[in-house]
Amino acid sequence: MGTEIERKFLLSGDGWRAAADEGTDIRQFYLAIREGLTVRARIKGEAKALLTIKSGVGMTRGEYEYEIPLADARELEAVRVGSLIAKRRFRVPLGALVVEVDCFSGDLAPLVLAEIELPAEDHAVDLPDWLGEEVTEDGRYTNAALAMAGRPPPR
Amino acid sequence: MGTEIERKFLLSGDGWRAAADEGTDIRQFYLAIREGLTVRARIKGEAKALLTIKSGVGMTRGEYEYEIPLADARELEAVRVGSLIAKRRFRVPLGALVVEVDCFSGDLAPLVLAEIELPAEDHAVDLPDWLGEEVTEDGRYTNAALAMAGRPPPR
Repeated sequence: MGTEIERKFLLSGDGWRAAADEGTDIRQFYLAIREGLTVRARIKGEAKALLTIKSGVGMTRGEYEYEIPLADARELEAVRVGSLIAKRRFRVPLGALVVEVDCFSGDLAPLVLAEIELPAEDHAVDLPDWLGEEVTEDGRYTNAALAMAGRPPPR
Repeated sequence: MGTEIERKFLLSGDGWRAAADEGTDIRQFYLAIREGLTVRARIKGEAKALLTIKSGVGMTRGEYEYEIPLADARELEAVRVGSLIAKRRFRVPLGALVVEVDCFSGDLAPLVLAEIELPAEDHAVDLPDWLGEEVTEDGRYTNAALAMAGRPPPR
């Protein structure tokens, strides 16, 4: 298994854009969502497709990821639960770490979320001022919840 | 996608055993079960693991199958829905086709089911006399239903 340790934030400004890469378009949807388990298909940049199983909740989750044929992912979209999620993901260096900034489109716009993957739960991070409120433990901001329930009311 | 066209039968005798291979032990469980979609992990002979997504119901279903690391499958067992299914699968030649005879163990014993994969729904088959009642359209005999609800009452 991979273990994914991730903190998630709302954004409080555009300061991240200067250091961001050009971004990658992501389309993703869920085949299954239940307490403690999601099965997700993701198409990255119309070129690569991944099937990802995540177990657990909160900051640390189990993650199992497998590349699958793009044609399979396109077909599986028809049997998804919830809405299709479309977003553009930008990578922003933060010391030795990387912040991924997801700019959602479609019904979820103008939601923007930032994720920092950490080597350990207690790994210290100097948070840049363009990161806003932390929502790591707020279940409404998981992509699975966004696919099922849409965008939470703006803060 | 693969499309799987399959007829399923109860057994009415042991006549299949003479032509059967030595069999393979299969352990399988479900990560997700809902109307029209299942996500299954299967360990074959303690050597190979597969993640399989099936869409649709009845005789013809979409099937997407990916080999995954054995260690992943063993870990994912902890986040399954329903019971673990253990069975020994025997392959029995039937002309150009193959009948797979599944002898279930554990709570599902002594259930035995036979499946014939067909090239087309209307493909004619001379059914051997050891095949009993056809249960292709009886949802209680899908492995997903067996994992959730157990063995139907004997006929």
